[in-house]
Amino acid sequence: MSHSSRIGLMPLWLALLLIFSLSWCFAQPHGRTEINIPDIPGYLTLKCDFHSHTVFSDGDVWPTVRVEEAWLQGLDAIAITDHIEYQIHSDDIKKNHNRPYAIARSRAAELGIILIKGAEITRDMPPGHFNALFLNDIDPLDTKDWRDALKAANDQGAFVFWNHPGWRQPNEIPIWYDEHTELLQRGWFQGIEIVNEYSFYPKAFQWAQEKNLTILGNSDVHSPIHLTYDVSAGQHRPITLVFAKERSEAGIHQALRTQHTAVYHNNLVIGSAQFLAPIFETAVHIIPLRVAIKGTGRATVQIQNRSGLLFELMATNALEEISFPETILLYPEKTVAIQLKGKSKTLTGKKHIALPFLVKNFLSTPDRGLPVSLTIEIEFISDI
Amino acid sequence: MSHSSRIGLMPLWLALLLIFSLSWCFAQPHGRTEINIPDIPGYLTLKCDFHSHTVFSDGDVWPTVRVEEAWLQGLDAIAITDHIEYQIHSDDIKKNHNRPYAIARSRAAELGIILIKGAEITRDMPPGHFNALFLNDIDPLDTKDWRDALKAANDQGAFVFWNHPGWRQPNEIPIWYDEHTELLQRGWFQGIEIVNEYSFYPKAFQWAQEKNLTILGNSDVHSPIHLTYDVSAGQHRPITLVFAKERSEAGIHQALRTQHTAVYHNNLVIGSAQFLAPIFETAVHIIPLRVAIKGTGRATVQIQNRSGLLFELMATNALEEISFPETILLYPEKTVAIQLKGKSKTLTGKKHIALPFLVKNFLSTPDRGLPVSLTIEIEFISDI
Amino acid sequence: MSHSSRIGLMPLWLALLLIFSLSWCFAQPHGRTEINIPDIPGYLTLKCDFHSHTVFSDGDVWPTVRVEEAWLQGLDAIAITDHIEYQIHSDDIKKNHNRPYAIARSRAAELGIILIKGAEITRDMPPGHFNALFLNDIDPLDTKDWRDALKAANDQGAFVFWNHPGWRQPNEIPIWYDEHTELLQRGWFQGIEIVNEYSFYPKAFQWAQEKNLTILGNSDVHSPIHLTYDVSAGQHRPITLVFAKERSEAGIHQALRTQHTAVYHNNLVIGSAQFLAPIFETAVHIIPLRVAIKGTGRATVQIQNRSGLLFELMATNALEEISFPETILLYPEKTVAIQLKGKSKTLTGKKHIALPFLVKNFLSTPDRGLPVSLTIEIEFISDI
Amino acid sequence: MSHSSRIGLMPLWLALLLIFSLSWCFAQPHGRTEINIPDIPGYLTLKCDFHSHTVFSDGDVWPTVRVEEAWLQGLDAIAITDHIEYQIHSDDIKKNHNRPYAIARSRAAELGIILIKGAEITRDMPPGHFNALFLNDIDPLDTKDWRDALKAANDQGAFVFWNHPGWRQPNEIPIWYDEHTELLQRGWFQGIEIVNEYSFYPKAFQWAQEKNLTILGNSDVHSPIHLTYDVSAGQHRPITLVFAKERSEAGIHQALRTQHTAVYHNNLVIGSAQFLAPIFETAVHIIPLRVAIKGTGRATVQIQNRSGLLFELMATNALEEISFPETILLYPEKTVAIQLKGKSKTLTGKKHIALPFLVKNFLSTPDRGLPVSLTIEIEFISDI
Repeated sequence: MSHSSRIGLMPLWLALLLIFSLSWCFAQPHGRTEINIPDIPGYLTLKCDFHSHTVFSDGDVWPTVRVEEAWLQGLDAIAITDHIEYQIHSDDIKKNHNRPYAIARSRAAELGIILIKGAEITRDMPPGHFNALFLNDIDPLDTKDWRDALKAANDQGAFVFWNHPGWRQPNEIPIWYDEHTELLQRGWFQGIEIVNEYSFYPKAFQWAQEKNLTILGNSDVHSPIHLTYDVSAGQHRPITLVFAKERSEAGIHQALRTQHTAVYHNNLVIGSAQFLAPIFETAVHIIPLRVAIKGTGRATVQIQNRSGLLFELMATNALEEISFPETILLYPEKTVAIQLKGKSKTLTGKKHIALPFLVKNFLSTPDRGLPVSLTIEIEFISDI
Repeated sequence: MSHSSRIGLMPLWLALLLIFSLSWCFAQPHGRTEINIPDIPGYLTLKCDFHSHTVFSDGDVWPTVRVEEAWLQGLDAIAITDHIEYQIHSDDIKKNHNRPYAIARSRAAELGIILIKGAEITRDMPPGHFNALFLNDIDPLDTKDWRDALKAANDQGAFVFWNHPGWRQPNEIPIWYDEHTELLQRGWFQGIEIVNEYSFYPKAFQWAQEKNLTILGNSDVHSPIHLTYDVSAGQHRPITLVFAKERSEAGIHQALRTQHTAVYHNNLVIGSAQFLAPIFETAVHIIPLRVAIKGTGRATVQIQNRSGLLFELMATNALEEISFPETILLYPEKTVAIQLKGKSKTLTGKKHIALPFLVKNFLSTPDRGLPVSLTIEIEFISDI
Repeated sequence: MSHSSRIGLMPLWLALLLIFSLSWCFAQPHGRTEINIPDIPGYLTLKCDFHSHTVFSDGDVWPTVRVEEAWLQGLDAIAITDHIEYQIHSDDIKKNHNRPYAIARSRAAELGIILIKGAEITRDMPPGHFNALFLNDIDPLDTKDWRDALKAANDQGAFVFWNHPGWRQPNEIPIWYDEHTELLQRGWFQGIEIVNEYSFYPKAFQWAQEKNLTILGNSDVHSPIHLTYDVSAGQHRPITLVFAKERSEAGIHQALRTQHTAVYHNNLVIGSAQFLAPIFETAVHIIPLRVAIKGTGRATVQIQNRSGLLFELMATNALEEISFPETILLYPEKTVAIQLKGKSKTLTGKKHIALPFLVKNFLSTPDRGLPVSLTIEIEFISDI
Repeated sequence: MSHSSRIGLMPLWLALLLIFSLSWCFAQPHGRTEINIPDIPGYLTLKCDFHSHTVFSDGDVWPTVRVEEAWLQGLDAIAITDHIEYQIHSDDIKKNHNRPYAIARSRAAELGIILIKGAEITRDMPPGHFNALFLNDIDPLDTKDWRDALKAANDQGAFVFWNHPGWRQPNEIPIWYDEHTELLQRGWFQGIEIVNEYSFYPKAFQWAQEKNLTILGNSDVHSPIHLTYDVSAGQHRPITLVFAKERSEAGIHQALRTQHTAVYHNNLVIGSAQFLAPIFETAVHIIPLRVAIKGTGRATVQIQNRSGLLFELMATNALEEISFPETILLYPEKTVAIQLKGKSKTLTGKKHIALPFLVKNFLSTPDRGLPVSLTIEIEFISDI
């Protein structure tokens, strides 16, 4: 008889202990997962979502849920931005623009989530929908005329951005109306969503670069976040990366006012090369920094990606001294080994060689990847 | 220059097409995942959760969310069972016991989810909390005395069960009070939760078997389901398996009245051997059904688990003719290969050999796994 | 004091039991995973890889490993096809063309894997490398002239195919040489790899369709399969789908001779619409098959993908009666819910509506997805 | 007509570009994954496997495979330890004890893996199998008498350890024979495997602690590592953690000679508290370090696990001032939020409170978890 067969005959209390033990590993949710995007020199990289809804407008969750989801998913800051003009649950829930923030703020404080008071000004196009952040009182924005609402937001010192500019436009391509020119001239909006939920608007990104608007990418989530983004399949909500001097509401406000943002959407990181380049440089490391190549022989180097981002590298041009891979995928938190091969039998001496790549999924303009280089010191040894 | 380097110089429209294409695989939530637990001879195996809350009592979600979560997670039926006596959001939401069902039913119809109207009678222990299912009108249950509430439920023909009997008891061990004897004698409750959220109450399972109560395992979920069960880490909510003649509200009601249920909790399946044995037999197959063993030689057979359940097999006794593995793990939807080894050089002839196991994580009583056997026809060939 | 704290003071034997129990879930490899690609009417869909190497040429594994990997990964059949002309381990391992098959065959028999005896004729381009399957004796193929080797293979009744035709050609684009015309006219090769390892050769697929060659997609694996394909990240080796009348070596041979194959590579399925269309039709189901739409109202239908394949659907044209999603992703073993919306307030009566799509990742020609339709019976109800 | 439908009509070159792009994310293995177990004060934590086989004894892979697997799985060092007395492939492969190291060393140098030359002395029990590491020449160990072999190893300055002491013993419980006493007295072995493949030998751990032997946990892998450990299901090979002053062969040798090791097996970490405690302290952080509790109110603190290890915390005793969770699971690279609750309405003033736990899955002796504490400064505020 096998020793294990005795377990069928063990006393109840022991059987129960074992069952308890077997069930153990499932006995608790797993907790918060940090988003591994590194800080860059001079700035903290805060992960934010400035557009979400609750049962107080047309969302499906209680305000505290937005805080708990944000905590679980590794965010630093969120804004609840319920529609001012639109309450679909009004048969059951009293209209009260200031309630979502009031309800959620203590849970945010407990969990260390920066909760920014905001609202969505929801008007027909033009000018469409705008989010106002850092509000004191939302009620004054509940006006008949949209100009009054936007003015009221700006009067409170709010940061205002144009939401999902391509929404319900043909082929989701945004259109710039005279009203947007007017608003821009008045200084009544300072940012624009280039990503909203599943949609990326390259045109909006182009406008932002031309007109000096802050770019944002937000979820606009209405249901529980896991019903919209399939986390177990690797999806994530769009995230506004805020490059801030400090992890605080004031730090975020200042960064938003100075266009210190980028957008993380699917595998794309979108923004100015000023911020994208240091993310790459902080995340990616060559090991070792020095190798030797004899004639047309080979050397192996490892490229380590310490971040949770994917980098899709494509060579931009060939080099005289060595050949190297045309494409390299740097998967999150992985290290790849690549081979360099000498091209000359006679080359000799030490050289710093910069491998020239585009990061294809890092968009520093709407139509171009981020140019980067990986530099290695190679000692060439003659092979004759 | 490499061919791929040209992509850096491609026209904007093409770059955008490629970006679109790259983002493609993330453009939509993935959809409903079926729970792969097989039907058994004579019955459909319906996956149900009969205990959940919404913003109309102390939950965090709008009623339609419960339906959408159930659809996504492969359930057949749910009940929304908000507390009758307890509304924590009453400052903002009007008390209305019948609203959650009224709000959620059309979404349930669209998605093919059976939505059962229910409520939680929420009283101090004894007798504690009870769910009533298949109600017509919840208002008559909003009574001062708990006996009146339970009577009102039974007067409507409801199926009533005792919730989380070990909750807030020392060491979570449930206590049977005189009130429960009274209720049982009156026939005012017919079932009992043996699993609630993360807790399993073996004592309640024992009572159910002694007193002929229907066993249930429910989530009692208050927040969005993904905040309580970490699906991306393989967790699932507790599920009441209902063995029904048809996939309908009536089919479920009949099955609940006749103790045709089991409970699926973590890796455990708990219930009567009458239902657990056919699950095993339907799920697990030996390939091939016939092998030959020469003397003390070996034969390989494959054991295929066609279900999404784990089976932890432990041998209960040795066999005269062959040795075989003491423990076998049959992982979900996997096939393992095991080796049988002859014990006699001289044995000859065909025999049906039944390998005797306990399924350690299938509890047919509180302290014992499910006895099963795997039968193979072996042709023994003498080796002299 | 908590009840759990006592575990720190428990007797050694019990502590060990608990530790054993805790470690339990890791105590065995998980076993074979079937590849969920359905059989089609009239044929079994066998999953095969006809190109692999061992230490007997330039591979890194013992021949039995190829069988065990194939079993684990859900394959039905493989061929070990070591180079005849190329043995990099000859300092340590004796050259013996027939050994790999001789070594691996008994393990294949035990695990139910169909092992096909083969070899790779490895010559400079033209004509390049060719695999010969169903050989009796590999030695006669070890000739000086490549014509003699190919003739010897055909003399044994082998099925011969051209391997990785784009390998080491500029931009991996294959070139058709006079030698290939000669071989084709002699009937000395009958198939062509359109996928090898990570490379897809659309040009080879085009030739196959023009010249009636059997298409194959193989791994050409040299190292352990998991070092080349990152299974934990969802990668899989290329697979030749063989549509056979029976699961046997003879069944496969007949199917290969009659072009009854397709290729499964990454998320692509490549082959004739004759086989791709029934895969889609067998895998994808609409639930329910009948709905009603009132005026410009909506109806929800579910599309269930019972296979392990991804289908990327794109609408090919609009319909007069209803609008429907332009793109639908049918993830493996998931069900999505989509909405149909009436376009006319007055339409009335029952109609069979066929939603017209291309399956973008099913290539029935090198430049076109597979046209399919999903048919629903809709009862239109006037809304006036 | 939808804009996407045009893709069906796009030119071939563009269709191919899109197909290429779609296939992109699968075009390369993902690369090396680091094992996130932190260095501890004063030492690097090297991840090592000192027991593996190749085709040169009874393994299934070419020696370079062991290096590539180690690199992929985040190891720092391995030893190939083929049996000296046992070559099952001798019909095909020439016996040559020094070949595996000679073959694999250049690949190890390229990938930065420390490859230690070793061999397995393979004799009947007693004394059983022993690994010798840091050998110069394996041939002198190929002796008739086992004493000669062990002496030859020690004469070369090898580090010698007893392998899988419970293997083939009743119930896998190891037996200490007189021969082991003899060997220990001669100083001819210095370590012992307490984990081998899937087996943990608590008795061997006890002996190691009593007799001052170095503990090791190794894979003893014969097949490709992924056939034995199902990485896609979260399994990992046993790992010997070596606490070394430098990442080099010499650093490892010194650490092995001074019992500076622990063993990582499934979710268990086994070893002296001297090393286990600093792993916990380096990995686990409380945020914030100071909170306030008013009367019997609550405070939330977050516990962050920065390592890739699981910690199963169980409270060892209750505290006077506050209640806190009895069990806490700290999942790898996750943060959990827990609640502390005051017990006294009147307590006032600042206190450093140490929450007392056992880490149940960290075994500092065979029968006991590791005692740890989490210290928080709490400001108690009277609530009267």
